[in-house]
Amino acid sequence: MKKNLKIVTIGGGSSYTPELIEGFIKRKDELPIKELWLVDIEAGREKLEIVGDLAKRMVKAAGLAWEIHLTLDRRKALKDANFVSTQLRVGLLDARIKDERIPLSHGIIGQETNGAGGMFKAFRTIPVILDIVEDMKELCPDAWLVNFTNPSGMVTEAVIRYGHWDKVVGLCNIPIMCSKIAAGALKEKEEDLFFRFGGLNHFHWHRVWDKTGVEKTKDVIEAAYTSPEGLVKALEGVKSPINPNNNPDEDGEQKAGVQNIPNIGFLPEQVRNLGIIPCMYHRYYYITDDMLKEELEAFEKGETRAEVVKRTEAELFELYKDPNLSIKPPQLAKRGGAYYSDAACELITSIYNDKRSHMVVSTKNNGAISDLPDDVVVEVSSLITSNGPVPLSWGSFDSSSRGLLQHMKDMELTTIKAAVTGDYSTALQAFTINPLVPSGKIAQTILDEMLVAHKEYLPQFKERIEFLEGKNN
Amino acid sequence: MKKNLKIVTIGGGSSYTPELIEGFIKRKDELPIKELWLVDIEAGREKLEIVGDLAKRMVKAAGLAWEIHLTLDRRKALKDANFVSTQLRVGLLDARIKDERIPLSHGIIGQETNGAGGMFKAFRTIPVILDIVEDMKELCPDAWLVNFTNPSGMVTEAVIRYGHWDKVVGLCNIPIMCSKIAAGALKEKEEDLFFRFGGLNHFHWHRVWDKTGVEKTKDVIEAAYTSPEGLVKALEGVKSPINPNNNPDEDGEQKAGVQNIPNIGFLPEQVRNLGIIPCMYHRYYYITDDMLKEELEAFEKGETRAEVVKRTEAELFELYKDPNLSIKPPQLAKRGGAYYSDAACELITSIYNDKRSHMVVSTKNNGAISDLPDDVVVEVSSLITSNGPVPLSWGSFDSSSRGLLQHMKDMELTTIKAAVTGDYSTALQAFTINPLVPSGKIAQTILDEMLVAHKEYLPQFKERIEFLEGKNN
Amino acid sequence: MKKNLKIVTIGGGSSYTPELIEGFIKRKDELPIKELWLVDIEAGREKLEIVGDLAKRMVKAAGLAWEIHLTLDRRKALKDANFVSTQLRVGLLDARIKDERIPLSHGIIGQETNGAGGMFKAFRTIPVILDIVEDMKELCPDAWLVNFTNPSGMVTEAVIRYGHWDKVVGLCNIPIMCSKIAAGALKEKEEDLFFRFGGLNHFHWHRVWDKTGVEKTKDVIEAAYTSPEGLVKALEGVKSPINPNNNPDEDGEQKAGVQNIPNIGFLPEQVRNLGIIPCMYHRYYYITDDMLKEELEAFEKGETRAEVVKRTEAELFELYKDPNLSIKPPQLAKRGGAYYSDAACELITSIYNDKRSHMVVSTKNNGAISDLPDDVVVEVSSLITSNGPVPLSWGSFDSSSRGLLQHMKDMELTTIKAAVTGDYSTALQAFTINPLVPSGKIAQTILDEMLVAHKEYLPQFKERIEFLEGKNN
Amino acid sequence: MKKNLKIVTIGGGSSYTPELIEGFIKRKDELPIKELWLVDIEAGREKLEIVGDLAKRMVKAAGLAWEIHLTLDRRKALKDANFVSTQLRVGLLDARIKDERIPLSHGIIGQETNGAGGMFKAFRTIPVILDIVEDMKELCPDAWLVNFTNPSGMVTEAVIRYGHWDKVVGLCNIPIMCSKIAAGALKEKEEDLFFRFGGLNHFHWHRVWDKTGVEKTKDVIEAAYTSPEGLVKALEGVKSPINPNNNPDEDGEQKAGVQNIPNIGFLPEQVRNLGIIPCMYHRYYYITDDMLKEELEAFEKGETRAEVVKRTEAELFELYKDPNLSIKPPQLAKRGGAYYSDAACELITSIYNDKRSHMVVSTKNNGAISDLPDDVVVEVSSLITSNGPVPLSWGSFDSSSRGLLQHMKDMELTTIKAAVTGDYSTALQAFTINPLVPSGKIAQTILDEMLVAHKEYLPQFKERIEFLEGKNN
Repeated sequence: MKKNLKIVTIGGGSSYTPELIEGFIKRKDELPIKELWLVDIEAGREKLEIVGDLAKRMVKAAGLAWEIHLTLDRRKALKDANFVSTQLRVGLLDARIKDERIPLSHGIIGQETNGAGGMFKAFRTIPVILDIVEDMKELCPDAWLVNFTNPSGMVTEAVIRYGHWDKVVGLCNIPIMCSKIAAGALKEKEEDLFFRFGGLNHFHWHRVWDKTGVEKTKDVIEAAYTSPEGLVKALEGVKSPINPNNNPDEDGEQKAGVQNIPNIGFLPEQVRNLGIIPCMYHRYYYITDDMLKEELEAFEKGETRAEVVKRTEAELFELYKDPNLSIKPPQLAKRGGAYYSDAACELITSIYNDKRSHMVVSTKNNGAISDLPDDVVVEVSSLITSNGPVPLSWGSFDSSSRGLLQHMKDMELTTIKAAVTGDYSTALQAFTINPLVPSGKIAQTILDEMLVAHKEYLPQFKERIEFLEGKNN
Repeated sequence: MKKNLKIVTIGGGSSYTPELIEGFIKRKDELPIKELWLVDIEAGREKLEIVGDLAKRMVKAAGLAWEIHLTLDRRKALKDANFVSTQLRVGLLDARIKDERIPLSHGIIGQETNGAGGMFKAFRTIPVILDIVEDMKELCPDAWLVNFTNPSGMVTEAVIRYGHWDKVVGLCNIPIMCSKIAAGALKEKEEDLFFRFGGLNHFHWHRVWDKTGVEKTKDVIEAAYTSPEGLVKALEGVKSPINPNNNPDEDGEQKAGVQNIPNIGFLPEQVRNLGIIPCMYHRYYYITDDMLKEELEAFEKGETRAEVVKRTEAELFELYKDPNLSIKPPQLAKRGGAYYSDAACELITSIYNDKRSHMVVSTKNNGAISDLPDDVVVEVSSLITSNGPVPLSWGSFDSSSRGLLQHMKDMELTTIKAAVTGDYSTALQAFTINPLVPSGKIAQTILDEMLVAHKEYLPQFKERIEFLEGKNN
Repeated sequence: MKKNLKIVTIGGGSSYTPELIEGFIKRKDELPIKELWLVDIEAGREKLEIVGDLAKRMVKAAGLAWEIHLTLDRRKALKDANFVSTQLRVGLLDARIKDERIPLSHGIIGQETNGAGGMFKAFRTIPVILDIVEDMKELCPDAWLVNFTNPSGMVTEAVIRYGHWDKVVGLCNIPIMCSKIAAGALKEKEEDLFFRFGGLNHFHWHRVWDKTGVEKTKDVIEAAYTSPEGLVKALEGVKSPINPNNNPDEDGEQKAGVQNIPNIGFLPEQVRNLGIIPCMYHRYYYITDDMLKEELEAFEKGETRAEVVKRTEAELFELYKDPNLSIKPPQLAKRGGAYYSDAACELITSIYNDKRSHMVVSTKNNGAISDLPDDVVVEVSSLITSNGPVPLSWGSFDSSSRGLLQHMKDMELTTIKAAVTGDYSTALQAFTINPLVPSGKIAQTILDEMLVAHKEYLPQFKERIEFLEGKNN
Repeated sequence: MKKNLKIVTIGGGSSYTPELIEGFIKRKDELPIKELWLVDIEAGREKLEIVGDLAKRMVKAAGLAWEIHLTLDRRKALKDANFVSTQLRVGLLDARIKDERIPLSHGIIGQETNGAGGMFKAFRTIPVILDIVEDMKELCPDAWLVNFTNPSGMVTEAVIRYGHWDKVVGLCNIPIMCSKIAAGALKEKEEDLFFRFGGLNHFHWHRVWDKTGVEKTKDVIEAAYTSPEGLVKALEGVKSPINPNNNPDEDGEQKAGVQNIPNIGFLPEQVRNLGIIPCMYHRYYYITDDMLKEELEAFEKGETRAEVVKRTEAELFELYKDPNLSIKPPQLAKRGGAYYSDAACELITSIYNDKRSHMVVSTKNNGAISDLPDDVVVEVSSLITSNGPVPLSWGSFDSSSRGLLQHMKDMELTTIKAAVTGDYSTALQAFTINPLVPSGKIAQTILDEMLVAHKEYLPQFKERIEFLEGKNN
C-alpha cells in the first residue's frame, strides 16, 4: 500500500485551510502524510503566506513532521500527488460580490450556487478546473480530485462529463448540517440515526430512521421545518464546532442551519406535503418571494452574504497572522462552510483506508435516483470505498419533487455546457430555464451585465463580451 | 358499422357551438348524424336556447334532417351516445375573470391554462368531468369523450388516471395555429409540410420538414419567432377562417398566432438555441417578465383576456339571436379558439371513419416522449384511428427543454391530485412548484383568496375554505 | 423537387430483381426514374447479365425509357444516386447452405436470420455494408439506403451504430404476410384493418383492429395461430402474388405464411396467453423442439431451405434466360421473400413523394418500444415521410414477451459488435447468449467450424481462423 | 428498544436448523433472544423432534436460558414474533426428486431453482408463503420475514408483489461462496476486498476491488473461472466451515464452489468477455450443454442432487439423534447450503442492531440495477439497516449480460404469476420462455407430467390437473 502521502490543496490560501489542516491532524494516525502542498495564484500570494504559516504552526504544535509546501507553481505541486483538493475562488470574493449584487440590483435573487451568481461562478470556475484535470492526467494520473469549490455539483459534473476524469468526488457541508438538525430535532445522537439523502448539490432531500427502524422523517419535518423557532430549537442541542458551548449569543450556523441563508420558515403545509425533508437551500425554491425580500434588504444595507464574508475573512486573516496562534480559531465558524474541510479530510481517509464510511457526496448517479439518467452527477448517500463512492439507491421521487429536480439537473447541464463552450445562446438558455431567474429581457440584461463585469475571468465568452462593450460604447 | 350517430355536447350553450355545428355540416357526407344534443345547466339556459336556435337554423339551412335537442338533463342526453364532447366552463366567464384578476392583483400572472388561474380551472372542472365519466360508464359505455375544456391536458389526464376511462381525447387549437404560422413563414402550403409535435397541452414544441425531407425547423424559428414582426408576416399569408380576407384591420388571431396571447417577441438567441419551435404559450415561461408586464397593463385597464372575452361573448350572443342568421358569424373569430371546434369534428370523423389522419392531441404517452413515463398524458402528433390516437414517437428532448417539460408534467399531476382529493397541502404544493407562481407567502395568499372566491364550485376544498372564512371573520 | 431519379441496387444479379423491376414499373407514375443500376461482383456476373437482360425486356415491354445499367463497378453506380437498395448475399447460396447445415450437423438449428446461420450471415455481410456506406458518404451523401439484406435488422443497426449513417431503412416481407394472414383469418379486407407491429426483425408481434375500432387480436390468434389448419385456412382467402389463383396445389407461401418456415402449430395455450400475435419466426423460440426436429429431417434429406432455394434459383435463372419473357415469372413466388422487393419500391416512392404511408420497417426506436433503449433499431409500424420513417408508439410489452425481446436485442448488439471488431470472445459471447444455440462446448465447436468454413469472407476473424487451422493441422 | 426477542423458524425440522442454532449462539451477545420457535407440519413431526432436541442440547451446552419451542401450530408460534425465517420445503425431498428427475427423463435439465424444477418449487411454495404472510399481518405485523426457501428470489418477489408485505429479505449462500472464491483466487483476506453483486437470485454477477481501490475482477476471472482446476485451487485456501481442515478428501463445497453444482469449466473466452464474474449457477446458461450431459449421467445412476441430498439427510438425522451431540456436526457441510443459516442470523442481528453491514440479499430494486424496473426484486449488495436493506447502485450491464438478465426476470415474474393465479396458460408461457427448458411439445409434456406428479401440493392448478387425469384415463 502506498505510503508517504502527498496531498495538494489548490486555493490553499483560502480562509478554510486551517480547518483542513485541523482535519488532517485529527486523522494523523490514519493518514501517513508526508507532504501537504498549498497552491495559490499570484493574487492570493499574501493570503497563502499568512495561512501557510499558520498551517505550519498547527502541524508543528501537533508534533508532526509533515512538510508544508507553499507554492504558486501548480504543476510542481501536482507532480505525483495522491489527493488533490480544490477550494479555489476565481475572481476572489469581489467576484462573488458582483454575483450577488448585480442580480439584486435588478430585483432578482443572486445566490452564489444555483442562482444567477452560481451560474457565473460555474462559468468562471469550470474552465480552470478542467485545466487542473488536464495537468492531473499528465502529472498524477492516479490521484483523486476532491472538489469543494462551488457550485460543487456542477463542477464535479463538468470534470466527469467534459474532463473525462472519473476519480472525482464533490463535497458539501449541507448534508452534515441537515443530519445535525435532524438529530437535534429528534433529541437523538446523530450516530443512532440512519439517513438517506438524494438530489443535487444544494438541492437535495433526505429521510431519517431511528435505531429501531422506524422512519422519523415526518417528526423531523414537524419539529424543525414548520417554523423558524423549531429550527433554532433543533440546533440548540447540537454541540457544533461553530458554537461549541451552545452559547445562544454565538449565532453561528444556528441561524438557519447554515450561515449563508436566513432562517425564514417554510410553509408548514407545503413541507408536510413533501413527505421528505428539504435542505436549507430549498428555501430559494419553496419560499422564493420571502427569500428575495430578505436578500433585497441585505442588498440595501450593503450586507449581502458576500460582503459580510469579505469582512469576516479580513478579520480572520488578521487573526491568522498572530504568530502565537497554532490552532484553528473558533471565529472561523462565522465564515460559514463548517464541516466542509473536515468532510474533505474524512473523504480522503475513507478512500485511502477503504473505510466504507457513509457520506453524502456528488458522484455519478448510476441509477441511484431512478428519475435521472445514469450518467449525471447527483448528491447522494454513498459508501466510500478505496475505489471511490458507491451510491445507495434512493429510488424515485413523487411528483411533488421529481419534476423540479429534473428541471434543476437540466439547468445545471445547460449551464455547464455554456461554461465549457462559451456559447452565448446556451448561456441565455441556462438563464431562461433557471427557476431562480425570471426569464425574458430581465434575464438577458443581467446575463449581459454580468458577462461584462466578470470579463477578466471569462475568456470563453470573449466574442459576446466584445460585442456588448461595443454596443455600450 | 354503426349508423344514426348520436353526438352530445356538454356545455352546448357555449359561444363556440356554431363553429361546432358548422364543422359537422362540412362533414355531413362522412358522418351519418341522427341526433345532436346540446346540454347545459340551469345557469346557461338562456344561452343554450339562443345558440340552440341558431344551430337549428344552420342545420335547416344546410338542408339536413338532423335532430337538434336542447336539454338541461345530462343523463337523458348521454343515453346511448356515440360521441360526447365537453366544452363546459364551470362558473362561467365570471370565474375566469377571478382566475385572472386575483393573481394579477398580487402582481402575479393569472393565465387561465397553466398558471394560477388554470390550476383553479382544473380544481373546478375535474370533479365535474369525472362525474360525466361516471354517467358515461353507465349510459354510453362505448362512446368517445372528446374534451376541449381547458386545461385540456390536465382534464384528459384526470379522466384516464382517476376516471379510469381510456376512450378520451384532448384537443387544442394551438398546434393548428402553429402549423399555419410555419406554413406562412416558409411560404409553403400546410399540406406540403410534415410536422411533429411533442410536449404537453399549451406547452409543446414542434419540428417541420418540407416535401423533400429537408428539416425547416430553423428556418421557421428564424422567420417567425425571432421578432414579433416576423410572426405577423408569417400570419399574413394565412387565409384563416378568422380573417378570411386577410384583412389587416381584422386583427383576429393574427396578433400572436392566437387571440389569447399578446405578440411579444421571444429572445432570438434563446429560441435559436432551443433548436425546436416553441408554442405561443411558451412566452409565459421564456419571457415571463415581459408577459407579466403586459398582463398587468391589461389588468389596470380592466382588459384582462377574460373581461375582453366576456364583452365579445355578449356581442356574439346578440348576433346569434338574429333569426335571419343561419351561418357561423365571422365575428366568432375574435372570441379566440378558432379551429378548436373544427378539430373536434375532424377528430370525430377520423375515429368514426378510421381515417388515420394526422392530428395533434392529448393522449397517453406510451413512450412517444421518452423523457416522460408511459402512463402520463402528453400532447403529441398522432395517427387517429377507429381505436383512437396512436402517438408518433417523438424521442427525447435535450437539456434545454427536457427538465422544464418534466417539471410541468409533475405540476400538472400535483394539480390534478389536489383537484380530485381536495387536499389543501397538495394544492399548496402545486402552487409552490408551478413555475408561473412565485412560491412562498404570496403563493399561499393567492391560493387562499382564490379558494374563497370560487368556493361555490369547490366542494372538495370545503374544510379549508371554512377554516379560511373563520379566520377572516 | 429532384427529378431524374437514379436508383442503384447492389446485388442486382439476385433472383429477386424481377420483382423489384415490376415494383418500379407499377409505380412509374409516381417515380420519375431515369436510371436503374444493377451492381454485382465478379462471381455474380453471369446472373447479373441474365437478370439484367430480363429487366431490360420488362422495362421495354412497359413502354418506359428508363436506362438499365449493369455493372461490376460499385462506385460508378453509386455516384449521385438517390436511392440505394442492398440485396446482396456475401458468399452466395453456398454460404447459406453452410450456415444451415453446419449447425444441423451438430443437432442444432441453423436458421439463416437469428440463429447460428444468421449470425454468420451478419459476420459476412456487415463489413461489406459498412464499406458501401463509406462509399455513399463520398459519392451520394443525400441518398437513402434501403436494406433488404438479411439479417435485415442487424444490418440496419450496424449502418446506424457503426456506420453513423442515419438515412437507412431495413425492410422485411414478414409483416406484410402477417397482415394478409390476419385479414384472411378475419375475412376482412387488409385495408379495412389497422395493424400495429412492434419488436425486432423476424422477432416482432402485432395487434389488429377492425374499422369500428374493436381489437381483433384474439380472434386472429384463435383462428390462425392455434392450429396449422387454421393458418392454411386463413391464407386461403388471400389472393397473393405467390398464388394468384388461390390454387391449392400451389403451396407457395401458403404453407406457413412464409416459404422459409414449416407450418408447425404453436401451442394454443401459449399463444393465447401472449395476447399479441407472434410472427412466423417466433416458432423458433416458442416451439424450438418441434422446429429442430423438422429441420433435422430436411437436413437428412438434403432439403434444408438453402438447398431448396438453390435449386429453385437455378430453375428461375433458366426461366429468366428466355428472351420472350418480359414479366416477372410467377414461379418466383416459390423462392420465398414475396413482397420483399415490392416493399422496397413502396418505401422508395413513399420517401420520394412524402406519402406518409404506413409501413413496418427497421428503424431507430426513439421510444416507440419503451422496453428498449431509444438508440437501438427495432422493427415497428411507421409513417413513411420524405424524411424517412417515424415510428408509431407501441408502448410496453408484458413479462411474457418483454424479457425475451430485450434478450434478442442484446444478442443482436453483441453479434454486430463481433462482426465489426472481429473479436473472437465477443463472437463466442453472441453464440452463448443466442437462445437458438445451446451454450457450452457445442456452441464453441460450431462457431469454430463455421469460422473456418467461411474464412474467405471473414477477414476480420483472420487471427482466430489461423489459430484454428493451426490447431486442426 | 425491544428486548426478549421471539424468533420463529418455519420448516424448523429441516436439517439446516443446527447451523441456524449455532449462528444464534455465536451472536448471543448481540441478540437478546427469549424464545426460539421451531414450526413444522405433521409430515415433519419426527424430524422436528429430532432436530429440536439437538437444538435444545446445543443451547443448553452454550449455557443459555433460551426457550426452545417445538410446535405444529404455526399461528401460535407467529403470535408477537419479531423475526420469522422460512426454510420450508413443500412436499419434502421427494418433491425435489420429482422436480429433477421428471425433466431429466425427457432429456431436459431439472434444476431446482431456475429450471423446470425450480418453477415447480415456486408453484408449490408461493401459495404457502403467502398464507404465512397473511398470518403475519394478523399476528405479528411488525416482524421481519427472512426467507431462505428456494427459489429465494421468486419467493421474495411474490411476498412483496402479491403479499404486499415489504418487510421481507431473501437470502442465499451463493454470494458468500463467491466472495470466498475471489479471496482464495487473489490470496487476499475476504475482509480486505470490496465486492459489488448485482443480478437475481442464482443469476448474479460480481466485481471485486482490493484495499487500494484497484479492480481485481479480471484477475479473479482468470484465476478461478477459466478452468475447473483454477476454481479448486482458489477454494483450497478457504478455511470453510464445510471443510474446516482443508482436507482434500472432504470434497465439501470445494467441488464447484457449491455442493449443488458440478465443477464444469466455463469457456475461458466467454467469461473473459463478460468482464464481470458469473455465479456458479451461470453454468446452466453459459455451458448448458455440458451441464445437461453431467446431469443425465447422475440421473442414470440415481444420483441426482435430490437423491444424494436425501441420503445425506437421512445420515444427518441419524447423527442428530445422538443424545451426546450438542454441536452442529461437521457432516452437515455435505448437505450443501453452507452459510445459508449463518447468513440468516447475521441478517437478523444486522436489522436488530442497525449494524449497517454489507450483505447480498434479494430486495426491491429501487434503481440499483438500471436495466430493470424499480419495483422488481433483485439480488444485490446492500447495506443492512434497522429498516432493512438499502441496495448499493450497480448501474447498467452491457449487452453481454443485460438482455439475459431481463429475460430471466420476466421468466420469474411469469412463473410467480402462474403460481399465484393457477392459470395454466401462464404456466406454459413461463415454461416456454425459461431458457433452461426447450420450448414446444416437450415443454408442455413436462409441465403436464409435473402438474400431475405434484398434484397434492398444487390446489391452484386443480382444473388443469383434473383435465389431464381425465385425458390420461
